[in-house]
Amino acid sequence: MGYVNFEIPTSMRASVLSPKLALSVEDRAVPKPDADQVLVKVMAVGVCGSDVHFYHEGRIGDMIVESPICLGHEMSGLIVAVGSAVDPARVGQRVAVEPQRPCRTCDQCFAGRYNLCRNIEFYAAPPIDGAFCEYVTIQHNFAFEIPAEMTYEAAALLEPLSVAIAAMRKGNVGPGSRVLIAGAGPIGVICAQTAKAYGASEIIVTDLVDSRRQKALTYGATSVLDPRVDDTRQLGVDCFIDATGAAPAVMAGVLATGPNGIAVIVGMGADEMLLPISHIQAKEISVTGIFRYTDSWPTAIHLVRSGLVELDSLVTGKFTIDQVQEAFDTDKNPDSLKSVVYPNGIF
Amino acid sequence: MGYVNFEIPTSMRASVLSPKLALSVEDRAVPKPDADQVLVKVMAVGVCGSDVHFYHEGRIGDMIVESPICLGHEMSGLIVAVGSAVDPARVGQRVAVEPQRPCRTCDQCFAGRYNLCRNIEFYAAPPIDGAFCEYVTIQHNFAFEIPAEMTYEAAALLEPLSVAIAAMRKGNVGPGSRVLIAGAGPIGVICAQTAKAYGASEIIVTDLVDSRRQKALTYGATSVLDPRVDDTRQLGVDCFIDATGAAPAVMAGVLATGPNGIAVIVGMGADEMLLPISHIQAKEISVTGIFRYTDSWPTAIHLVRSGLVELDSLVTGKFTIDQVQEAFDTDKNPDSLKSVVYPNGIF
Amino acid sequence: MGYVNFEIPTSMRASVLSPKLALSVEDRAVPKPDADQVLVKVMAVGVCGSDVHFYHEGRIGDMIVESPICLGHEMSGLIVAVGSAVDPARVGQRVAVEPQRPCRTCDQCFAGRYNLCRNIEFYAAPPIDGAFCEYVTIQHNFAFEIPAEMTYEAAALLEPLSVAIAAMRKGNVGPGSRVLIAGAGPIGVICAQTAKAYGASEIIVTDLVDSRRQKALTYGATSVLDPRVDDTRQLGVDCFIDATGAAPAVMAGVLATGPNGIAVIVGMGADEMLLPISHIQAKEISVTGIFRYTDSWPTAIHLVRSGLVELDSLVTGKFTIDQVQEAFDTDKNPDSLKSVVYPNGIF
Amino acid sequence: MGYVNFEIPTSMRASVLSPKLALSVEDRAVPKPDADQVLVKVMAVGVCGSDVHFYHEGRIGDMIVESPICLGHEMSGLIVAVGSAVDPARVGQRVAVEPQRPCRTCDQCFAGRYNLCRNIEFYAAPPIDGAFCEYVTIQHNFAFEIPAEMTYEAAALLEPLSVAIAAMRKGNVGPGSRVLIAGAGPIGVICAQTAKAYGASEIIVTDLVDSRRQKALTYGATSVLDPRVDDTRQLGVDCFIDATGAAPAVMAGVLATGPNGIAVIVGMGADEMLLPISHIQAKEISVTGIFRYTDSWPTAIHLVRSGLVELDSLVTGKFTIDQVQEAFDTDKNPDSLKSVVYPNGIF
Repeated sequence: MGYVNFEIPTSMRASVLSPKLALSVEDRAVPKPDADQVLVKVMAVGVCGSDVHFYHEGRIGDMIVESPICLGHEMSGLIVAVGSAVDPARVGQRVAVEPQRPCRTCDQCFAGRYNLCRNIEFYAAPPIDGAFCEYVTIQHNFAFEIPAEMTYEAAALLEPLSVAIAAMRKGNVGPGSRVLIAGAGPIGVICAQTAKAYGASEIIVTDLVDSRRQKALTYGATSVLDPRVDDTRQLGVDCFIDATGAAPAVMAGVLATGPNGIAVIVGMGADEMLLPISHIQAKEISVTGIFRYTDSWPTAIHLVRSGLVELDSLVTGKFTIDQVQEAFDTDKNPDSLKSVVYPNGIF
Repeated sequence: MGYVNFEIPTSMRASVLSPKLALSVEDRAVPKPDADQVLVKVMAVGVCGSDVHFYHEGRIGDMIVESPICLGHEMSGLIVAVGSAVDPARVGQRVAVEPQRPCRTCDQCFAGRYNLCRNIEFYAAPPIDGAFCEYVTIQHNFAFEIPAEMTYEAAALLEPLSVAIAAMRKGNVGPGSRVLIAGAGPIGVICAQTAKAYGASEIIVTDLVDSRRQKALTYGATSVLDPRVDDTRQLGVDCFIDATGAAPAVMAGVLATGPNGIAVIVGMGADEMLLPISHIQAKEISVTGIFRYTDSWPTAIHLVRSGLVELDSLVTGKFTIDQVQEAFDTDKNPDSLKSVVYPNGIF
Repeated sequence: MGYVNFEIPTSMRASVLSPKLALSVEDRAVPKPDADQVLVKVMAVGVCGSDVHFYHEGRIGDMIVESPICLGHEMSGLIVAVGSAVDPARVGQRVAVEPQRPCRTCDQCFAGRYNLCRNIEFYAAPPIDGAFCEYVTIQHNFAFEIPAEMTYEAAALLEPLSVAIAAMRKGNVGPGSRVLIAGAGPIGVICAQTAKAYGASEIIVTDLVDSRRQKALTYGATSVLDPRVDDTRQLGVDCFIDATGAAPAVMAGVLATGPNGIAVIVGMGADEMLLPISHIQAKEISVTGIFRYTDSWPTAIHLVRSGLVELDSLVTGKFTIDQVQEAFDTDKNPDSLKSVVYPNGIF
Repeated sequence: MGYVNFEIPTSMRASVLSPKLALSVEDRAVPKPDADQVLVKVMAVGVCGSDVHFYHEGRIGDMIVESPICLGHEMSGLIVAVGSAVDPARVGQRVAVEPQRPCRTCDQCFAGRYNLCRNIEFYAAPPIDGAFCEYVTIQHNFAFEIPAEMTYEAAALLEPLSVAIAAMRKGNVGPGSRVLIAGAGPIGVICAQTAKAYGASEIIVTDLVDSRRQKALTYGATSVLDPRVDDTRQLGVDCFIDATGAAPAVMAGVLATGPNGIAVIVGMGADEMLLPISHIQAKEISVTGIFRYTDSWPTAIHLVRSGLVELDSLVTGKFTIDQVQEAFDTDKNPDSLKSVVYPNGIF
C-alpha cells in the first residue's frame, strides 16, 4: 500500500445504531483497503431521510437493522491510503464517494445497471456499514476527485444530487421539458435545481408548507403550488417527480402528467399506493422509480463546478459524531434542509 | 368519386344503442366519403369487450352514451367507392380498417403519437359511430388491403392484434424476452401468440379458469398458472401484460416483474388500482398502458400472412346485425373467445 | 379572414434569383393565407449558407433552381392577417417562423418525422419560394409568438438555433457530454452555445482561422484547436458535430469520436466522403446527419429567453432587400457570422 | 477445484500460427482454470473469416500476430473441471463459449458495453490464444449450457449467430422490418435467418454469385438480387446489413436505406470507405457497425432451440486439428459456408 504522508490510527470512533435503535459512539478498527480500494478519512456526511427512518423504524422494506450498524452514506473525505493495485499518487486527494460496491458479475452488472446489482453492498443499508465514522474504504473508481474550490459539504451532497440526476435521466428531462416536483425538502429543491440545469422550461414545485414553497423559488422553481388549494390536474407535464413519498402527492402528480409523460417516484413511502390506472392508460404515462444511480458523480461534479447547481446553501446544521441524534432530530423542522455530520471534527 | 362497379344504396341498416342502453336496428343514410376517404361495405365486425361494456354500463371513463350510437370497431370489408382524391383503382379492394381519424394537427399528431391525438375520432367511442352497420367511411390510408387468402374474420381481428402489437412494442418484447400475461381471454391469447411471434422465449399465462389456461397453451403459452394456487412473485419477468383489468392480477403481475422490467396494463378496469410502489422503485420497473395503437396494421398483416399469428380459430360465434345482443351475451361464457357480426349477412 | 388593423397591399417587392443565377428585385402579388394559415409581414431574414450556395451553384443535391425563386428561410415578422380557421386575436403577434409545410399524410409525417416528409414544402428549397420578400404565408402552428424582449433578429436566428437543437438531440448531448465541433462559423458557434445549454462539460471547437477560434471561446467553447496543428485522435468524445461540410474535418471528427459515440454531420459538402469504417466498427460509432428539425421552436425560444443562448451578437451585417447580393458576399469574410436582410426596411 | 470424472492431461496439442504465418501443431500445457473459470474440452470450432485473414495477412487493424498464436473463437465443448468458486456440478456440462473476457472495471464495462471493454481479452485476437487446441479456460458465466438436442457444431456456430443478433439489435430489426443484406456467405445467411426470426417482413439478399443467392433463399431471404444487374436505390429499407466488407456493397446498401434507417456494417474490409454523406443527411440515416456482442448467447440458444434458426446445415467441411490449413483453404470456394475443426477428433 502506498501510505505516503498520513498516519493511520488502528482504531477509530464510529456512531453506531443498535438493533434496539439506540445510538452510541463506539471504538472500531480502522478498515484496511483491499487491493483495488482506497482508505478515506471522512470529512463530511450528509444526513439522509433514510438514515432517520432506520433510526426511528429499524427497517426500510427488506432491509432490517438486525445487528449494530454505522449509518450515513452521503460523504466526502480525503484519501489517506490506497490498496496495492491503486496509484499511490491518489493519496492526498480530496474525494466524493459513490457509496456502493456492485458485484460486477451478475446479470444486472453486465447489463450496465449496477445499481440493481443482485449482490450490491450499499453504505448504511443493513448489514453494510456506512460513513458516520472516521475512516471508510471504497473501490478506487468510486472515489471521485473533487475540484479545489468545492467544499467537502458540497462534495458530500453530490450523493443526493446523484439521486436527482438519476431522476432526470429516468424522466427524460431536457431543454424545454415541463416538470412537476412534489415536495420542497432537500431532494425536492435539489431536483428543482437539477431540472433547471437540464434545461427544463417550467419547473412547478408543490409543498404543503409556505416557507418551503418560497425556498423552492430560490432553487430553480418557476412556480409553486399548494396542493390543498391549487388544482394541478390540467398541467399535463412531461415529467412528474415525487420527492415526498406521500400517497396523495403521488396520485395528484400522476394525474398532472400529460400524454407520453413519465412519473418518477423518488420519495420512499408506503409499500403500496393507489394509482390512477385509467389515466395512465389513456395518456400512455409511465410510472417508474429510481433505485440509487449509476455513473452520476462526474456529471454531478460538472453541474456544481459550472455553477448550474449550488449545494452549500442547503446545509442548515453542522454536528460532530457525538451529535448524530441531534442531527437526526432536525428532521422534525420543516425549514431544515440538510444536516451535516463531521466525524473528524467540524472545520 | 370513382364509383366503378358497385351500386350504393342511399340507406342502410345499422344496429344502434340508445342512451337508455336498448339495442335496435334502424335505417340510416349511407355515408358519403370525403375527398380523402373510402366507402367500405362492412363484411365482418368483431365484438370487443368495450362494446359489451358500453351496452351494460353506458360509459367507459369520460366516454358516455348520450345519444344513439352504432358500436363496433374491429372490422373488415370491401371498398365500394372512393373520394375524389383517392385512386379509383382501390374500388373492389378487400380491406381491414384501422378505425380512427386523428386530427393530424395537434402536438401529439405532429409527434407521431396520433393515438393520443387531442381531437381523435375513434369508431364506437361516443359520439362517433362504429361499424355495426352496412357501410362506413374511413380515410384511405387507414384502409389496408388484405391478402387474397386472408378471411374477412381474420382481417377484422387485426384490430385486437394491433392492440397486442402495441403492447409488445411498449413492453419492448423481443427475442429471448420472458413475458407474463394475465388473462386467457381473446386479448390474452392474441398477446400470447404475438409474444411468440416477437420471439419471447418464455410466455407464462395466468387465468382463473382451467379450460382457458389449456387453450392458452395452444396459442403460444409456454406454461400456464392458476393465480389462486401458484406464486408468481419469483418470476422476475422482463414484461408483464395485463389482459384482465382486474386489480389483483395487476398487483400480482407487477410484483412478478423483474429489474428494469415493463408492466403494460391493457385490460380496462377500475379507474384506480393499488400498485406495489416500493417494488417498482427497488427494481426500477415501469408501469404503463396502451391507448390503442399507431402504425400497426402492416405489421399485423405480416404476422398473419406469415403464419406467426392465427386468428380464424378465435371465432366462436357468428351473428347477423339483428343478433348483436346475442353476440354481446356470449361474453358471459368463459370459453367464448370472439363473436363476429356480419352486417351484410353471414357468408 | 380576421384582418384587424393592418392594411395589406396587393403587391410587394421580392428579391428573386433567376435560373441564370441573377438576383433582382421584382414586384409580386402578396399571397393570401389559406384557412389554416397566417400572413406574416417579414421583418428580419438571416442569410444561410444554403442561400449563398444556391446563388453560386444553382443547386443543392436534387434541388435545382429551374425557375425564378425567392430565397431566405431564417425569418421573423408580424402577423398581419389570418385565415378563416385561425384565431383573429393572433393578428398583431410578433412571430418566428418554422419555414416548412409538411403534408401530414405520408408515412414519415404519421411517424412524427415531418422533417422527412415525402412531400415537404420548405421555404427557399426550389421550387418553393422563401422569405426575401415583404410578406409570406405559413400554417398557423408554424408561426410561434416570441417574447416582447426578443428582437426580430434573434427570432430569425431561431432557425439556425433549431438546426443546433436537432444536432444536440441526434447526438444525445446532455449534462456531462464531451462534444467536439468542427467549424467556428455561424452554425458552429450556435452549436457551441447550444451544447453548453444542453449541459456539455467539454466543448472543443476546431477551425482553421485563429480569429474564429478565439470567437468560439466567447460562445461556449471550453477549448479550441487548430486541425492543422493539433491531433484530435485521442479525444474520444461522446459526440462530434461537423459544421464545415469539409471532408477532412469529417474524417478527423469521426476518428476523434469514442466508444458508442455519435457523429452528426450538419455541414453540407460533397455528396460522398471517405469515412473511417474500421474505427466506426471497432468503437460502434454512429455516423448520421440531420435534415432540418421537428418541434424545436418552443425549445429554441426557451433557450434564448432564459439567456442560455444569445443570438443578437451574431449579426455582423444588415441589408435591405435591394442589397441581398451584398449580404451574400459577406460570406467571403471569415469573420462575418450572420448577415440579416430586412425586406420591409432596416429598423 | 471440483474435478469430478475427467482425467485432465498436463499437455495438449494446439494449432499455432507463427509470426511468419506458418501453421503447425505444437504441444502446450493444459491451462488451469482460475477460481471463477471453467476448463472446457474443445469439441468443435468454426473457422471464421478473421482466422483466415490472420493466416494470410498477419494482422487485422491494430491486432498483429507478433508472437505464436492459437486461432479459433467459435467454439463449444465439455466442462471437464471448474475453478474453486464455481459450482462443481457444472463438470460434465455441454457448453457453448462466449469467447471474451472483459475487465469488468473500465467505463465501458460499467456502462454495460463490455464488448467495448478497454482491456478486453478476446480469443484469437493477438496476443490472446484461441480455441484450435484441446482445452481452453473461460469465466464460468461465459460458458452456456446447451440443450441435449443441440449439436456441438450448432453450439460453436452460436458465435456467428451472436454477431447476427448484435446486428439485428443495432439495426432495430423487428416484426415488419424491411431488411437488405449484402453478401450470402456464412454471416449473410445467418443474418437472413436471424432477420426472419426477428420478424422482418422483407429480407432482400444481394450476392455476386448465383449459387449463393439461391442458397440465401433457403435461409430466410424473401428475394435475392445481383448487385451488378439490379438497382437497389429505390428500396428504402429500414435496415441495411453489410456482410461483405466490400466498399461498393456498403455504398449501394447505404443508398438503399430509407428515411431514419440504420446501416450496420458487419463485414470487415478497408479501413476507410466512401459513403454517401448527402444521402445520409437527407434521410437521417445512421451508419454504424458492431464489435462482437454482449449478452447474446441465451437469445442465440433460444433461436436455435425453437427452430427459428438452423445452423447444422451450414457446416460444409470437417477437419482435424492437423488440418487447420485445409480448413482455411475452403475459404476460396464460394459455395463453402462453414468449416469446423475438431481439436479432440471428429466424432
